[in-house]
Amino acid sequence: MKKLTPGIFFKKLVKILRGRPQIPPSLQDNQLLQTILKRRSIRSFTGQEIPEDAWSAILEAGRMAPSTVNLQTWSFIIFTQEQWRQTFDLPLPFGGKRAIIVLGDISRVKESIDIFPQSPLVEYTVAVLNASLAAMNMNIAAEALGISSVMLSETGKSGFFTARHLQEVLNLPPGVFPLMTIVFGYSKQPFAPLPPRLPMDQICASGKYPQADRKVLEDWLLEMKTAFKAARPLWSFDGQLRKYRDDIERAERELRSLVFREESGS
Amino acid sequence: MKKLTPGIFFKKLVKILRGRPQIPPSLQDNQLLQTILKRRSIRSFTGQEIPEDAWSAILEAGRMAPSTVNLQTWSFIIFTQEQWRQTFDLPLPFGGKRAIIVLGDISRVKESIDIFPQSPLVEYTVAVLNASLAAMNMNIAAEALGISSVMLSETGKSGFFTARHLQEVLNLPPGVFPLMTIVFGYSKQPFAPLPPRLPMDQICASGKYPQADRKVLEDWLLEMKTAFKAARPLWSFDGQLRKYRDDIERAERELRSLVFREESGS
Repeated sequence: MKKLTPGIFFKKLVKILRGRPQIPPSLQDNQLLQTILKRRSIRSFTGQEIPEDAWSAILEAGRMAPSTVNLQTWSFIIFTQEQWRQTFDLPLPFGGKRAIIVLGDISRVKESIDIFPQSPLVEYTVAVLNASLAAMNMNIAAEALGISSVMLSETGKSGFFTARHLQEVLNLPPGVFPLMTIVFGYSKQPFAPLPPRLPMDQICASGKYPQADRKVLEDWLLEMKTAFKAARPLWSFDGQLRKYRDDIERAERELRSLVFREESGS
Repeated sequence: MKKLTPGIFFKKLVKILRGRPQIPPSLQDNQLLQTILKRRSIRSFTGQEIPEDAWSAILEAGRMAPSTVNLQTWSFIIFTQEQWRQTFDLPLPFGGKRAIIVLGDISRVKESIDIFPQSPLVEYTVAVLNASLAAMNMNIAAEALGISSVMLSETGKSGFFTARHLQEVLNLPPGVFPLMTIVFGYSKQPFAPLPPRLPMDQICASGKYPQADRKVLEDWLLEMKTAFKAARPLWSFDGQLRKYRDDIERAERELRSLVFREESGS
């Protein structure tokens, strides 16, 4: 693994700051496409309130998302700043104005159609897959309305990394899996650089699995370290990875108990 | 459970045919919002080819999707009609012109950052969640270009229901999980009714989990049966459910072996 020397750091930083989506010149005029491709995760919001009509349209985009056999395996818990503080005793992250906790939810299906065998992993997959489709649809609908957002799936205590905590605080029934919190507001960031994306030929191939190139992966990891260092000069990337290790072990235990209903002591 | 009498069937059919997304009157002029909310899964395509610039823009929307810690846990295998036939010995479903098999993919992350403990369920969740975000982004990007699509996650042999089959045919390495096939083309359907959606108050609540109403769920299931009967008058909904039961048992075994690497004989 190459070391992140000051020279490499600077070179990679320039590359990151120049990162842009590839939009075919013939399609530059397509506003919808521009909105979709230029979307960024925003982590700093102004004090401007989200109008009620925009808020309902965002939620409607969740309800209108496609799903496996139209099973709509999702639920949304919505929060104002006040409700978030009352529930979690913390401010809404990044000064966001509203938030949605997106839940994968198989409980309604199990209640209405009770002929299915126990199939916890299939149920979990259906729940996670479709709730994620709904989440992306809400995120893009917000963009269409000039409203920014960020999906928190491992940050703080608001995603699947802390599913058990959320299950307890929100009193969720079995078959309901916290996935992420989407925080919404109007962006206060003058420029949001594109986090380093893998080149298209590393993630996409024609008719066969795209075999990744180890050198390109190393390069990408250096860019990830650079982005991390640039945003948090005093933090250690490797230290952060070590912290993740403990979090992941806990998350694994908790997810298994949620998905397979392996309660301790039962 | 109420029976689907001819009277109920007709009443529910009218309701389904009248189903529309709720778009606030003040936002009717927003084209992108209209595109997102009026999107339908399309299952019949014309012979018109998808232009190359549009196709690259759709893939770029996948590459630009947000992901947990920017890990980009997805891969896309793309197909023309000919490539699909060569690979699966079958025509591309519904006369679609192009297809993408969307894979949840943790293999690159495991290769570049090797300090993580074994955490198969966390890895699977990261893979499924983020690959689904990319899938939705590609679907909406296509819509923005006037191109329709359908996501097949359980139909045919093209999604997570037959992940093991796809792993074998496509020779996928460990840590790669087939999720769905998205089939793209220009719509041949003059009208695509909205599959019966649950009312907003059943899936969304303010500050707390939305408790579903058993009567509303029963009503929704009658609508699901009606939609099924209207599309396939000679088939039995309950018979189809029984068929699913076997498929689900097989899918559960196969997914467990893929996710937890429980190979038979090892």
